[in-house]
Amino acid sequence: MTVHAYAAQSADAPLAPLDITRRTLRPDDVAIDITYCGVCHSDLHTARNDWGNATYPVVPGHEIIGRVTDVGADVTGFKVGDLVGVGCMVDSCQHCAACDNHEEQYCFNGFTGTYGGTDKVDGSITHGGYAQSVVVKDKFVLNVPENIDAAGAAPLLCAGITTWSPLQHWKVGKGSKVAVVGLGGLGHMALKLAHALGAEVTLFSRSPDKIEDAKRLGADHVVISTDDSQMAEVANAFDLIIDTVPYVHDLNPYMPTLNYNGTLVLVGYLGPIDPFLNSAQMVMRRRAVAGSLIGGVKETQELLDFCGEHGITSDVEVIRMDQINEAYERMLKSDVKYRFVIDNATLA
Amino acid sequence: MTVHAYAAQSADAPLAPLDITRRTLRPDDVAIDITYCGVCHSDLHTARNDWGNATYPVVPGHEIIGRVTDVGADVTGFKVGDLVGVGCMVDSCQHCAACDNHEEQYCFNGFTGTYGGTDKVDGSITHGGYAQSVVVKDKFVLNVPENIDAAGAAPLLCAGITTWSPLQHWKVGKGSKVAVVGLGGLGHMALKLAHALGAEVTLFSRSPDKIEDAKRLGADHVVISTDDSQMAEVANAFDLIIDTVPYVHDLNPYMPTLNYNGTLVLVGYLGPIDPFLNSAQMVMRRRAVAGSLIGGVKETQELLDFCGEHGITSDVEVIRMDQINEAYERMLKSDVKYRFVIDNATLA
Ligand SMILES: [Zn+2]
Ligand SMILES: [Zn+2]
Ligand SMILES: [Zn+2]
Ligand SMILES: [Zn+2]
Repeated sequence: MTVHAYAAQSADAPLAPLDITRRTLRPDDVAIDITYCGVCHSDLHTARNDWGNATYPVVPGHEIIGRVTDVGADVTGFKVGDLVGVGCMVDSCQHCAACDNHEEQYCFNGFTGTYGGTDKVDGSITHGGYAQSVVVKDKFVLNVPENIDAAGAAPLLCAGITTWSPLQHWKVGKGSKVAVVGLGGLGHMALKLAHALGAEVTLFSRSPDKIEDAKRLGADHVVISTDDSQMAEVANAFDLIIDTVPYVHDLNPYMPTLNYNGTLVLVGYLGPIDPFLNSAQMVMRRRAVAGSLIGGVKETQELLDFCGEHGITSDVEVIRMDQINEAYERMLKSDVKYRFVIDNATLA
Repeated sequence: MTVHAYAAQSADAPLAPLDITRRTLRPDDVAIDITYCGVCHSDLHTARNDWGNATYPVVPGHEIIGRVTDVGADVTGFKVGDLVGVGCMVDSCQHCAACDNHEEQYCFNGFTGTYGGTDKVDGSITHGGYAQSVVVKDKFVLNVPENIDAAGAAPLLCAGITTWSPLQHWKVGKGSKVAVVGLGGLGHMALKLAHALGAEVTLFSRSPDKIEDAKRLGADHVVISTDDSQMAEVANAFDLIIDTVPYVHDLNPYMPTLNYNGTLVLVGYLGPIDPFLNSAQMVMRRRAVAGSLIGGVKETQELLDFCGEHGITSDVEVIRMDQINEAYERMLKSDVKYRFVIDNATLA
């Protein structure tokens, strides 16, 4: 089946219309008409080949919401008309220790990315949600609650699960003290989710102009990270710091604000921890720095169910497909509150 | 009471005899005739003021073994003649979250070091185990099993507990895969203890000349860390890496050898993590880098009991007190297998 999509044809070309083919259904496939697709920083970085691993054309998009239009012969979990989602993964080996533990994001044989991945069956390069439809193996399709805004639900599939997974792994709940660094797509979800889990939530911010919005989103406190006295007041305060900052930055100022046994988890930055992390702050209080990558399929379903129960969605700005290049430019200036979501009907 | 001791009078003076006063027993005090005292790198660094916080005279020593000679009026846990030990701490606040959790090493009000600490009652500077006797608050005195070599037991109080505590905190047992970096006083204890706990144990070494000794001490495998093919063979292998190296070193080569969810814990190095740690290896596998400091009193007692049951002691070279300066020089060249222990009878 041929469908309309938007693709980058090279690292320096803007995204433009492209018709792509979606495969004929395999027995375990689900065909989905895409209604909304969130716009993630990874989309932009892959389209522009910032990580050097792009295969063109790139059709980005891994925060997909849509309706089931058809299912393969062996599919029992979904039926035509279901509201569903697809996140960052569309396949994994299904038999390694990570997959057995429902953490396909750490699949030892490598998960298949929703775009730019290599399909395990036919070797084709996968294409993401900047398209009218998608065909995905049933085990990687999620049920989306009907009671929450579908556009606002899209970012749950990447920004949401990326912050939810560490909240779950480090067992955040009532009585937990959580801090969030960075108030973007990931950070605003971290505030909402940690708050809904019952934690006392703090946003670290460099500027006071984010205080009002942070509190609306679920922060109990905002600490201005450039103010030494405010930082000193939160010494030993946090069980978990979710650091969503996507560029290189100094972690040392945050380390003393971790409680003993606390962990700072990086979810948005891959690269050298520069300036040097000082181990003294870690040894003296058994603090840790860790990383965390999206989340597993089961965990993503739990997140969606939780968001349905608690009425949680992302704060989004819905755009037309043809506004995507402008949206990328605004994202680079952090000029979005807090996630762009494409109305895929505009691809028709 | 005046007793013979050895002390540094300044950063550049060798250790030399000095008579010091031990306090009259308080109601909760235990008086101990010291029979052996292990020699820790911290002793040397404090004597030479390498960390800039020494108060002279410095009487080092926090791996103390001895016999109880007297107890205060309120002491019920110890009696004259008991074989006991004292580690790195002689007091803590006893009412913070860490102390409540039997982790006095992380006391939020600061534990009192066995030497160079400030006594909470009279404000005096504490003096350690390079002395004929010591007087210590009962809650910081440990029972030492009579069935293991007393000299070999001394290093359990610092080198032993420093490696035991992370093994316990990260729940190492049968089925665990543990690696150790560095084969010195801490590293050789890590091998013995991880092996006795039932883990599969690997030593990372830069040279093949340590293979035989490592295997004798409990290593199942030795991986030459400068051999890329050997390092590649242990990709994703370890649940926990105990890094005992006391100087700045590159952690990046070890990170890919951690299993997903694995932790590399620094127990010997305080300072900048140089070269830059790369977060990609952490994010992609939810790996962590943490620090850990000695261990709590309760945990130290559990270690001593475990060593009694399993017949575990440190490999030691017993020296006379007047050999201490020579021992320091040899320690700086890593010329000790694996811990010097002072025979305190030679102070008489
Ligand atoms: Zn994403
Ligand atoms: Zn797998
Ligand atoms: Zn020590
Ligand atoms: Zn305390």
